[in-house]
Amino acid sequence: MDIQTLRTQHPDHWKKACAIRVLTLDAVAAANSGHSGMPMGMADVATVLFEKHLNFDPTVPKWPNRDRFILSAGHGSMLIYSLLHLTGYADMTLDQIRNFRQWGAITAGHPEYGHADGVETTTGPLGQGIANAVGFAMAEESLRARWGAKVMDHFTYVIAGDGCLMEGVSQEAIGIAGRHKLSRLIVLWDNNGITIDGKVSLSDITDQKARFAASGWDVFECDGHDPVDIDRAITAAKASPRPAMVACATHIALGSSAQDTSKGHGALTDAKLIADTRAAYGWDHGPFEIPADVRAAWAAIGARGRATREAWEARLATLSPAKQAEFARIFAGEAPAKLAGAIRALKKQAAADAPKLATRSASEKVLAVVNPIMPETIAGSADLTGSNNTKTADLGVFDVDNRKGRYVYWGIREHGMAAAMNGMALHGGVRPYSGTFMAFTDYARPSMRLSALMGVPVVYVMTHDSIGLGEDGPTHQPVEHLAISRATPNTLVIRPADLVEVAEAWEVALTQTSTPTVLALSRQNLPAVRKTHTAQNMVARGAYVLAEAEGKRQVILMATGSEVEIALKAREMLQAEGIGTRVVSMPSMELFAQQDEAWRKKVLPAGPVRIAIEAGVRQGWDRWLLGERGREAKADFVGMSSFGASAPYDRLFREFGITAEATVAKAKALL
Amino acid sequence: MDIQTLRTQHPDHWKKACAIRVLTLDAVAAANSGHSGMPMGMADVATVLFEKHLNFDPTVPKWPNRDRFILSAGHGSMLIYSLLHLTGYADMTLDQIRNFRQWGAITAGHPEYGHADGVETTTGPLGQGIANAVGFAMAEESLRARWGAKVMDHFTYVIAGDGCLMEGVSQEAIGIAGRHKLSRLIVLWDNNGITIDGKVSLSDITDQKARFAASGWDVFECDGHDPVDIDRAITAAKASPRPAMVACATHIALGSSAQDTSKGHGALTDAKLIADTRAAYGWDHGPFEIPADVRAAWAAIGARGRATREAWEARLATLSPAKQAEFARIFAGEAPAKLAGAIRALKKQAAADAPKLATRSASEKVLAVVNPIMPETIAGSADLTGSNNTKTADLGVFDVDNRKGRYVYWGIREHGMAAAMNGMALHGGVRPYSGTFMAFTDYARPSMRLSALMGVPVVYVMTHDSIGLGEDGPTHQPVEHLAISRATPNTLVIRPADLVEVAEAWEVALTQTSTPTVLALSRQNLPAVRKTHTAQNMVARGAYVLAEAEGKRQVILMATGSEVEIALKAREMLQAEGIGTRVVSMPSMELFAQQDEAWRKKVLPAGPVRIAIEAGVRQGWDRWLLGERGREAKADFVGMSSFGASAPYDRLFREFGITAEATVAKAKALL
Repeated sequence: MDIQTLRTQHPDHWKKACAIRVLTLDAVAAANSGHSGMPMGMADVATVLFEKHLNFDPTVPKWPNRDRFILSAGHGSMLIYSLLHLTGYADMTLDQIRNFRQWGAITAGHPEYGHADGVETTTGPLGQGIANAVGFAMAEESLRARWGAKVMDHFTYVIAGDGCLMEGVSQEAIGIAGRHKLSRLIVLWDNNGITIDGKVSLSDITDQKARFAASGWDVFECDGHDPVDIDRAITAAKASPRPAMVACATHIALGSSAQDTSKGHGALTDAKLIADTRAAYGWDHGPFEIPADVRAAWAAIGARGRATREAWEARLATLSPAKQAEFARIFAGEAPAKLAGAIRALKKQAAADAPKLATRSASEKVLAVVNPIMPETIAGSADLTGSNNTKTADLGVFDVDNRKGRYVYWGIREHGMAAAMNGMALHGGVRPYSGTFMAFTDYARPSMRLSALMGVPVVYVMTHDSIGLGEDGPTHQPVEHLAISRATPNTLVIRPADLVEVAEAWEVALTQTSTPTVLALSRQNLPAVRKTHTAQNMVARGAYVLAEAEGKRQVILMATGSEVEIALKAREMLQAEGIGTRVVSMPSMELFAQQDEAWRKKVLPAGPVRIAIEAGVRQGWDRWLLGERGREAKADFVGMSSFGASAPYDRLFREFGITAEATVAKAKALL
Repeated sequence: MDIQTLRTQHPDHWKKACAIRVLTLDAVAAANSGHSGMPMGMADVATVLFEKHLNFDPTVPKWPNRDRFILSAGHGSMLIYSLLHLTGYADMTLDQIRNFRQWGAITAGHPEYGHADGVETTTGPLGQGIANAVGFAMAEESLRARWGAKVMDHFTYVIAGDGCLMEGVSQEAIGIAGRHKLSRLIVLWDNNGITIDGKVSLSDITDQKARFAASGWDVFECDGHDPVDIDRAITAAKASPRPAMVACATHIALGSSAQDTSKGHGALTDAKLIADTRAAYGWDHGPFEIPADVRAAWAAIGARGRATREAWEARLATLSPAKQAEFARIFAGEAPAKLAGAIRALKKQAAADAPKLATRSASEKVLAVVNPIMPETIAGSADLTGSNNTKTADLGVFDVDNRKGRYVYWGIREHGMAAAMNGMALHGGVRPYSGTFMAFTDYARPSMRLSALMGVPVVYVMTHDSIGLGEDGPTHQPVEHLAISRATPNTLVIRPADLVEVAEAWEVALTQTSTPTVLALSRQNLPAVRKTHTAQNMVARGAYVLAEAEGKRQVILMATGSEVEIALKAREMLQAEGIGTRVVSMPSMELFAQQDEAWRKKVLPAGPVRIAIEAGVRQGWDRWLLGERGREAKADFVGMSSFGASAPYDRLFREFGITAEATVAKAKALL
């Protein structure tokens, strides 16, 4: 539908959509950067969605049963900022719009979770939003099954562009959604045929409708500028028993001289272009000026959801007080009160039993205790269930006919899994953890970074955490992945050494509220190293003295996970030669860095020779070996400086020199 | 087709395929680990492929015009090891098979490029092989167009499993191949319906044939055990004008009690199971024993390609000596002799002009000189052509009707792009470089790791390398990505500071033969810092003294890329206070680490206070700040310890404290 027809046939709609378009033009011009074309192209679809379908209430933005709206094509951030402003989200003032992309504004270049109410997830890295949305929809299905439709019953809407659909993660997301018949998930595809480099056909000829249908989606089409047609298509999509994709035929940068071109994708800042576009729109108001009638029309849209929200609150109030408290707890992301006691009991038993276990198996033992008392956990694995040890007996399998099941067979889709976990955690009411091999964090990296950037407390159960996995060889052996995870801001990396430390690690991970955790767990069996029970969670201190030096303290050995055993052996050998040696277990550098200086100095006093032992690269260790300001100690490292190899694991440790003998030699060389 | 029918109707074929199956059983049993089911399931398809279609010659394994065979489902490594052994690759002895997955053997758990002849690429991380194959096929198309079919004219065959097809990267690969009508690419899908966790239907209901067809592939089917049907399907696939996928219906772990189960995916080591399976096969030979008639039959298959290879050599010999030398050069991956002179001339001019330029623009200027003298380069970008500055005027666009074009519009597919670059480099005859934003190295990580593990000299042009990109905000601002790249073994990271350093960086990158390079380039303009011409490539030294201290040397400032400017300003301020300050430009830590100790001590003598300045995380710097054994210097760091933010870039540098003033303050605090 062209602009003239639209203005004539749907004047009220046109003005509302136009408000989005001109706010976009004005904000991008003020910032002298940004993306104009997408909001200009999708304004009609978004207007119809917000006016006729989306359940939301700007006065209570985080109402748990709201529909979720996810702008997967996050570069078009002015679309969502305009919508939030026009519908009356209190924090999205006109000043924020004027300060688009400026320091301190909540109107970041791409929508950032936690900045503005109504932004459900951080988008911009393409494909993430659509994959998050799968997690949102799964969380909704799970909660609806377990709490009933009167408490949880909503849709998740996504606006996705060609970029989102070209990224591989979108295929993983489409596959998961199709398999699980997530009928409350609706993707509105901004089918404008343009990418940054030019026409989509420069790089892709995929029939997207056929592609979605191939994975079990229902597919609809509409003229993305005709409000009646848009409404019809969304209505049909909502009625579909499968996830639905609506191909919205749109014109990028509608009405400007850059319409239907890649120039229109970016920042349209030329004054004449903007003036001409306003004229084409018949919009004769000044920059950032929204006439009263349009404001009122949008305000009415914003007010639409209040009654629905209040009705939901009334329904929630009919639950028993205990149920209401539980609902509040899981949406607040608080661990249950009994978690601490359960972990303590498990630790006590573990210290007494001192089992020889792979830490991945230890993790399963802890989860067997945790899952029954934390019904909010949703678990899974990227097709490595038996290897990641993430499935406990009580969980049940999440499936089309068992939405109460809490275990997800993600398939061979690490990236989609991580993105969906982010979506689940952002939805609230569930606490996701899932696993793959540590080396394949690579596949999930873009979403793991977003976990950290958004501060969502998901748990990545990364097993097979070193050359200790043995024969599968270097493709499967992480070497740099601990360093990679540690290099990422706001990421908690924990590499526990035995069952006691694993229990402590899980307690730390499950009580996080704004930080994701990477648990690095061994494939191979490890001896117990914590055989004396302490009520205190020592992993929470990041590092602690596991074995004190006898006699004069000349050497401090630091290690994590499977290498703590080596440190203890090396200590025995050094002590036998009269060299006083302390062993520090350092399951988490991040937690250690958060301790006060007194603790850090107590654990790592300046002076003694320091050797760190970890079957990964050295990068990241120097801070603790050498001291942040330097000159604290002579130091050396026992670990990897190359990729691994395929062989039985004990042979690999020997060949790569990660042994007690090598540790002793390096320590003595520095004494 | 069941075993009994197969044995009866195709006894000769059956015995050949059986040899693969029993070698697999025997090797996995000996290793007590590995994956039996896939080779047992795909033995018939592979036998027909090698017997009837694949052009190869075990006596000259790297013959450039051979067909390429890629086992994307790399866990089934015994399939390819068996094939290589049976067809007569000299290095693949029976002892190597007996030593499957043992230290020092070329029969690693997953096929490793560079270990065994005939292994064209490292596979195991799923989806990589099929995505590599796209690059192989593109290289073939490009070379065929430019050198003629008499020199280059071959197919690329892939065996892919459900895991490969579930990984998102496969969608990117399928999209690229479909768009470019890569008709010489044939994917044989091992459609066995089983993954590690159970049936494929646990996690996926995708109609793979429809999915491939949606992206422009031709799709075929066959009974993956019936040699006649397999032959028919492959023959049809070869004749197709589009890339072809053959859905091969197979039984995982055929003939064993684990057939058609997820148990069959892994290591079948039970003695009774193996004995029963041998009996079902009618194979009454001992472990690792191949009867003479079967050996002879396979030897004949191995001998099949010799004449074809010799005919090709004869055709190649008809080229002019200069052409032959050029062909040899590009397949050896050697830079042309005139590269050095061209770079030197450019550097001289740049030192004289001292332009203020973003290093991404500087890179384009260098490429404008390089590309005309290196016809083997193939360039591209993941839909950021104008931002990555990877396209120079002379390249032309690689397209269906212009296979000579050397610029690829990869689309929004960083992962597929990186994997295809690996494939191109492995194919030989072309030297790929391509770009995206530095932050989106995350998307390409699994393939970038494989570049390093395989040692393929691709070049990643990663622009927008810090918060210096400004308003796009934290999703687009790399913070940890330099550390991530540096943590990866065998990866050269270069972050040049101006046009001269960019020219030197490209010379280093383009003369690598077994190491990939990550070029980190700025979005923002930077002043020239190398204004005096030196013939020597200083970037190749890793770090060097850019500005010497005047008076007593009390401080050494180290910086890379855009922060060298800040170091120079801080030096001025410190010198003004009488504090002698050296500035070290350190474009590459890896290259610096490779220098002899004399150079390293000359550049970084012990004693003076050291401050490093880089708009990324500190991880990786401590080695140079503190000395590897510690105690070399007091030191501090000016950089990032959190994610970035959305604002103009100068504001960001100020807000995050990456300034000359902050540098001076930190230096003085340590003096």
